[in-house]
Amino acid sequence: MTDRAAADEHRIRLTLHYDGSDFAGWQVQPGERTVQGELEAALGRLTGREIRVTAAGRTDAGVHATGQVAGVAVPPKWEAQELRRALNAVLPRDVWVADARSAPAGFHARYDAVARGYIYRLGTADVARSPFMRRWCWPLGQPVSLAVLNDAAARFRGEHSFRAFAKAGQPERGEMCTVLRSEWREATHGTLTFHVMANRFLHHMVRYMVGTMVDVARGRRPLEDIDGMLRGEAGLETSPPAPAQGLYLTRVIYDNDDPDTADEILP
Amino acid sequence: MTDRAAADEHRIRLTLHYDGSDFAGWQVQPGERTVQGELEAALGRLTGREIRVTAAGRTDAGVHATGQVAGVAVPPKWEAQELRRALNAVLPRDVWVADARSAPAGFHARYDAVARGYIYRLGTADVARSPFMRRWCWPLGQPVSLAVLNDAAARFRGEHSFRAFAKAGQPERGEMCTVLRSEWREATHGTLTFHVMANRFLHHMVRYMVGTMVDVARGRRPLEDIDGMLRGEAGLETSPPAPAQGLYLTRVIYDNDDPDTADEILP
Repeated sequence: MTDRAAADEHRIRLTLHYDGSDFAGWQVQPGERTVQGELEAALGRLTGREIRVTAAGRTDAGVHATGQVAGVAVPPKWEAQELRRALNAVLPRDVWVADARSAPAGFHARYDAVARGYIYRLGTADVARSPFMRRWCWPLGQPVSLAVLNDAAARFRGEHSFRAFAKAGQPERGEMCTVLRSEWREATHGTLTFHVMANRFLHHMVRYMVGTMVDVARGRRPLEDIDGMLRGEAGLETSPPAPAQGLYLTRVIYDNDDPDTADEILP
Repeated sequence: MTDRAAADEHRIRLTLHYDGSDFAGWQVQPGERTVQGELEAALGRLTGREIRVTAAGRTDAGVHATGQVAGVAVPPKWEAQELRRALNAVLPRDVWVADARSAPAGFHARYDAVARGYIYRLGTADVARSPFMRRWCWPLGQPVSLAVLNDAAARFRGEHSFRAFAKAGQPERGEMCTVLRSEWREATHGTLTFHVMANRFLHHMVRYMVGTMVDVARGRRPLEDIDGMLRGEAGLETSPPAPAQGLYLTRVIYDNDDPDTADEILP
């Protein structure tokens, strides 16, 4: 089956939540449990067909989502709401279809997206190690300055080459990204949340950004390193990437969306 | 080893968080994974002794805690903070020692407690079915009236016989309970939280109270049923108990506690 829907298919856009803890990421890999794999297995069970699912962003192992968007083409008898109910009845407990709606036949979840939003949760209090938090944040467990984090975050806004903030050796279609939002906020139980939105993200980009900003805020490297890396200065490297379990894909924006399409459960 | 500490032991009071999802409750049972069992295994590993742990409240299978209190007697060389760090290093990820402090030699976590507090989380929005919520609330997924819930909750305040709200066939030392707080509040993401504090609770009591209040709020039975059950009227029965996964033991109060002792992570 090709990725674009045939004329006798109904293209549906799904908004997904998933707890990334027990997944080897979004994308199907042999011998691994993946979100795409679970979703395609559920669709196969419901329709008796082999149905491919395309996501807006291929999240890594351990990364969560509350606003992942996936496109599927199903036999025309399936209405969006009916498909949502049926999928939620057969999907495992760590994946949930929050929304389903009809999409134009040409809809492509990845190529049609104009912006994506992520939230990264940093646990600065000791309670971040509680079982109610540790799987869903970076349990740093020590205070960091919100003001310095925001000084660092401001450097990322606008259009820059993010090559320094991408996983090495990964082929990327260009390095330029336009960051529309880059801001830290205080949230509940001593967490700080980093809210970032951009037209596109390179591989591991948010985790490298967060790892580097946290090192700056802990006084381990100067703020100016970020400017240097965005200018492509030789000899400068990011800090290690922040752990996957703090990262959430929360929003994907399409050109003609109503403002209410997004579904954000996180602060 | 007896439950009261011998003279050459250091009695320590632990405050525990646990995610009840994968436990058959607090109390040790043959062949089952329990919180007490994990804690005693960890203490055995650290001290080389068989050490019994006594909890303030024996939570049922699936019930969570953010303020369970447990008393242990360890060899005197163990300081409270050292024991906390060592336990957190060896305990499984779903149990966490939030606090440890020295207690008098005669301290008994259960008998010395003067009040206990629970929170019950009810998810009234569709998003309650998300993997980020469904294990930690009753995912009802439909709106209920906060005002009617609070009318119902008010009936429980004060001293009453709660025999009608206890699991049948369970031996209880008396039926009278004094309810100090009984109140519903609006929380995040369409959840309503029931905050209840009493000198003591009968078996399954909070879950029967919540199940009955929610039935009243959904218009399935009259508010007056609650008064009738508290008066011991014949022929009246509670609604089914609310699911365990919405219930949290959040607080245990001792006579001479500082007000800051309690540790509440939930709203």
